[in-house]
Amino acid sequence: MKRVFVAGFLMTVVALGQAPSQDGPQFTKDNRLVPPANYREWIFLSSGLGMTYGPADGAPSDNPHFDNVFVNPSSYKAFLATGTWPDKTMFVLEVRSSASKGSINQGGHYQTEDFRLSAEVKDSSRFKDKWEFFTLPANGQPGEMLPRTAGCFACHSKNGAVDNTFVQFYPTLLPVAKAKGTLKSTEK
Amino acid sequence: MKRVFVAGFLMTVVALGQAPSQDGPQFTKDNRLVPPANYREWIFLSSGLGMTYGPADGAPSDNPHFDNVFVNPSSYKAFLATGTWPDKTMFVLEVRSSASKGSINQGGHYQTEDFRLSAEVKDSSRFKDKWEFFTLPANGQPGEMLPRTAGCFACHSKNGAVDNTFVQFYPTLLPVAKAKGTLKSTEK
Repeated sequence: MKRVFVAGFLMTVVALGQAPSQDGPQFTKDNRLVPPANYREWIFLSSGLGMTYGPADGAPSDNPHFDNVFVNPSSYKAFLATGTWPDKTMFVLEVRSSASKGSINQGGHYQTEDFRLSAEVKDSSRFKDKWEFFTLPANGQPGEMLPRTAGCFACHSKNGAVDNTFVQFYPTLLPVAKAKGTLKSTEK
Repeated sequence: MKRVFVAGFLMTVVALGQAPSQDGPQFTKDNRLVPPANYREWIFLSSGLGMTYGPADGAPSDNPHFDNVFVNPSSYKAFLATGTWPDKTMFVLEVRSSASKGSINQGGHYQTEDFRLSAEVKDSSRFKDKWEFFTLPANGQPGEMLPRTAGCFACHSKNGAVDNTFVQFYPTLLPVAKAKGTLKSTEK
């Protein structure tokens, strides 16, 4: 009975997200990122359509991409409590194709099956700048760290409203950061 | 010890979603729908922007609405296994305002803080047509059932690709329904 109880208790702790990094990033020995099997069961933060950070150039695409952002559940709960991201936070960015006409839909845009993935991970014991970015290949193999010259490094660091992340575009987290006083001064 | 063990076991079962309706709809005695506190921690199915089911009339809005769809986790897991929705399935539709220019964004659309909620629920023991639609008021009070004349009833029933639901617009579930053979013939 005692062994069964311990197993039940441990399962409870893990399932309720009280074990801090059970749902966070996993790495290969050479620092590649293991793709998470179930990020679609993580917490959805927001989606945008055709978001453009630089000057808009030319006419917008007929079928721009959606970007869906997911974060691991234990880090989401920590953010709700503190307005900050704990170590072992992992974001998955899913860039998904769109369509306008299909089934009964006649206008606007909906999401379709083609997509590509990337990730942003906070791990201060592993990365000297705490946050790193990774590709997540379609073949399910571990993802490579992006070079420091990739645009995401400078832009997240400079423009992310909380730490290295675009909380200004996550409508349920922005009020949390405001309430906790964790927004960078440029986004207040 | 025995009581603690039982509590631990029950929490485990609930947290792992093995109790079929723990995360499903809850009703008041007069059949109003209790708003779920944590639907943003449910499974995100997809979002669309400015989707239009009727003929497009006039120019599109500068800031159309996003619609985010969430479903209770235990029903999602059942759909992955069967391609069908079990009793006590609950969808939450979050219709959220959008903006185009803000922070560093210059084009496209992102989601902002204003939103309204409605729900679709399957409960064959409670509703004669199995599925019903509800408002979910902003004040957090229980939601009223929509009248049968509301457009959602006829449209979901006629056009939903699986049962009463628009699986044709949920890109991770459409392949599941295809594989399980549960798509209505009109959407195959």
